[in-house]
Amino acid sequence: MNGLICFTNCLLPREDGSLIQQDLWIDERRGVILDAHRTFFLRKERPDRIIDLGGNILSPGFMDIQINGAYGFDFSVYDGDDGAYREGMKTVAEKIVETGVTSLVPTIITQERSLYPKILSLLRPFATPISANLLGWHAEGPFIQLAKRGAHAPQFLVSATEQFASFEAIYGAENLTDREDWLMDTVNDGEVGVRIITAAPEIDGVMAAVEETVKRGVVFSIGHSIASTDIATAAVQRGARLITHLFNAMPQLHHRDPSIIGLLGASPHLSVPMSPNQLVGATTPMSRSDSLKRRLKVAEQEGPKAVSEAFDDLLTPPQTPIFVHRDSELHLQKGKVADMAFERPFYELIVDGIHSHPNSVRLAYSAYPEGCILITDAMKILDPHLRDGVHEWRDGKRFVKEGDKLYLEGTDTLAGSVVTLDKCVRNFSRFTGCSLGEAIKCATFNPAKCLGIEDRKGTLRPGADADLVVLDRKGYVQSTWVKGKEVWKRTVT
Amino acid sequence: MNGLICFTNCLLPREDGSLIQQDLWIDERRGVILDAHRTFFLRKERPDRIIDLGGNILSPGFMDIQINGAYGFDFSVYDGDDGAYREGMKTVAEKIVETGVTSLVPTIITQERSLYPKILSLLRPFATPISANLLGWHAEGPFIQLAKRGAHAPQFLVSATEQFASFEAIYGAENLTDREDWLMDTVNDGEVGVRIITAAPEIDGVMAAVEETVKRGVVFSIGHSIASTDIATAAVQRGARLITHLFNAMPQLHHRDPSIIGLLGASPHLSVPMSPNQLVGATTPMSRSDSLKRRLKVAEQEGPKAVSEAFDDLLTPPQTPIFVHRDSELHLQKGKVADMAFERPFYELIVDGIHSHPNSVRLAYSAYPEGCILITDAMKILDPHLRDGVHEWRDGKRFVKEGDKLYLEGTDTLAGSVVTLDKCVRNFSRFTGCSLGEAIKCATFNPAKCLGIEDRKGTLRPGADADLVVLDRKGYVQSTWVKGKEVWKRTVT
Repeated sequence: MNGLICFTNCLLPREDGSLIQQDLWIDERRGVILDAHRTFFLRKERPDRIIDLGGNILSPGFMDIQINGAYGFDFSVYDGDDGAYREGMKTVAEKIVETGVTSLVPTIITQERSLYPKILSLLRPFATPISANLLGWHAEGPFIQLAKRGAHAPQFLVSATEQFASFEAIYGAENLTDREDWLMDTVNDGEVGVRIITAAPEIDGVMAAVEETVKRGVVFSIGHSIASTDIATAAVQRGARLITHLFNAMPQLHHRDPSIIGLLGASPHLSVPMSPNQLVGATTPMSRSDSLKRRLKVAEQEGPKAVSEAFDDLLTPPQTPIFVHRDSELHLQKGKVADMAFERPFYELIVDGIHSHPNSVRLAYSAYPEGCILITDAMKILDPHLRDGVHEWRDGKRFVKEGDKLYLEGTDTLAGSVVTLDKCVRNFSRFTGCSLGEAIKCATFNPAKCLGIEDRKGTLRPGADADLVVLDRKGYVQSTWVKGKEVWKRTVT
Repeated sequence: MNGLICFTNCLLPREDGSLIQQDLWIDERRGVILDAHRTFFLRKERPDRIIDLGGNILSPGFMDIQINGAYGFDFSVYDGDDGAYREGMKTVAEKIVETGVTSLVPTIITQERSLYPKILSLLRPFATPISANLLGWHAEGPFIQLAKRGAHAPQFLVSATEQFASFEAIYGAENLTDREDWLMDTVNDGEVGVRIITAAPEIDGVMAAVEETVKRGVVFSIGHSIASTDIATAAVQRGARLITHLFNAMPQLHHRDPSIIGLLGASPHLSVPMSPNQLVGATTPMSRSDSLKRRLKVAEQEGPKAVSEAFDDLLTPPQTPIFVHRDSELHLQKGKVADMAFERPFYELIVDGIHSHPNSVRLAYSAYPEGCILITDAMKILDPHLRDGVHEWRDGKRFVKEGDKLYLEGTDTLAGSVVTLDKCVRNFSRFTGCSLGEAIKCATFNPAKCLGIEDRKGTLRPGADADLVVLDRKGYVQSTWVKGKEVWKRTVT
């Protein structure tokens, strides 16, 4: 017994969004994906088990980088009982796999200051043998904009007057240490808790904290903010890499100051300093026409057939068309342009059909498909089996659930969602018209890439963790695998 | 003498936005573009003239489908003197060629009702032997939204209580006759004046007039409107084909009701009724090639090695990737989906750097590049040689010009622009990072396609009018040709 499993008769999502009919080999004991070619052909190994997936899709497990809670547990609520908190983490991690999620970054929303050390001492990278992986936490607040606080408690919002030191003061310096190998510690006690910080760059001191945050390997995400275009752009220049729940808790797209949403339209072409050659240059040898003219001259002496052939060549588009870029003003402003250099940030979308209109979702996605990350932003009452009605939250507040809609009782303030990530994937494909493979990419490869772990998670690359979800052709979860073990399977009803 | 001209040593824009090094043959006497292969090889003809363009770009002439006036003349002002009005048309048509424009659709903004018959009897398809072509007019108003009237006179706005009959009553039934050959009459008296109507579909009776407008061969454009997503979508379903100056005089993009701007995110995939096969079926090599093109584009930024790898993939025999589309809900709702079927509309952009922030321009363009149409929306004071200051408009109102910025005196209401179309093309390339060839397409092929005349204008297809503009590699106009004749040439200074 070598512990090798070969999944066959299945479609595998690729990183370009396509699906391909191909087998996948994993090592059940090590919990990793194998290079089928090397395993089968070079090492001549044969699998212990061959699993026929009946034409279903075998996807990397979904990754949810913003989730407040589920199955009755709220990651942001600590009521003094460490055991209960740990039990809650375990419940979520073990149950969430029914939605295809194998990795999650739980969100801690704005807390009373003294609670941070306690919660973060509990909420660390975590997994049981049959659960999804908690990869660390997403700190949403308290460095956010009062005017865009959403469901965050206004009295706990703070500025970062000491810049990065303020971040350390709130989250704990030990949670912001640079650890390149943080992902290695997920099963045992990972030492680094903070993976993502959502903050508003216009808040005093926050902008100055971005670079150090990024240096520590933590994703800086712009959110709950009224940043102008200039401020948002500056934050990205300093390393901000993500936008928290795009469209929600930020200014509308104003065409003369498109603000945070407008970052999706920021062109990497424009912002990269170009050499004079690139600015005006042709990429195809300029001699093409000369040589064709010569050839025509010769051909005319050889007869009509030669002329005809020469003309076919003349009229055939060359394989490398010529793109002429930009005008002189750019070139002259090269210094300024260099200052602006940045990649467009990733952006989170809650695709429950409520937080944003389908057309808005399509607009964002078509503007920048590579940056799209599907999240649930789910509340503790997320539970595919739960009924509509009024539910308790925290601080004596209550929420109303109506289908996938969830709002603060007595208000129309949306607060998180109760949609599952597998449903988001299906919605997204419907809303945008993209293929299921392209939608899957937004819940697997894109979030992994944002976190810089696309070699380990959200991928089927050899060597990656064998975190997998089997979907039928319509995107419904059939079974979920974590580190090579099947941890959930649909019961035939 | 056969009147044949061969342009050589030049780059020709193609309809995919690329530029190609290739000769172009025209027939100077007929004023049309020739099929080089047929002319040279089959008919064995040789050109009278060979014009070496020194490596410059030979583009189809620019087309401006929204322009209020220029060089001191306002298409919307008739002061009782027919001769003066005709002289004004002539002035604009003959001077505008210095900006590379060879076709224009002058805008008539909201008028006092009795003036329409008079102005439209004057403003017909028109050209002189040395001028650009006036293709008919763009009626902007009076069926528009009071709340989004911009510089339109509120007292002249009307609803369309009689639906299409109201359009006929205002514009004249004889100007809304279906004439498939309207373009043939441009030099002599074309009989059809109205090419585009900008109206607000939420105004009483307008929605019901859309279908008949479209049937008559007139482009219905949504503008000066507060249409909700549902109303805007319904207008497109009925045939609306264009959005007037996107972003301006319409609601901001609200993510829960993205309104008119959100139409750029409306997916043709979602809205086309699908067979069960298409829903789950395998697709096309096109999807693969599209995704590879995307990859190549990205790779080009990453460097030669990435390009080489991408090309390896391109050349690898396709493994027939399978795209799985959508979930069952769509399939089950096929009837509903069929109701929604529509193509996304074209949209006009004023790319003067003032009417919309560069990021907004990029966002729109990257969401739907095929629909982008550059316009000037220029006022009568458009004149590349004119100085900043206060200028008279009409009805005793005055405008302030500051660089490319133009607003009503004493207000901050933008009113048209004073940017030239060739500058818009250069701006657009800078703002979006697209190539000059792609920017050219938005001022040539796209507007022609919107008007349904892409075989005759905005193209270098054989048989099209030889309306041409020679641009240097930075997009500056060197010479302009109309119907095979050089009508303007840059003076060497």
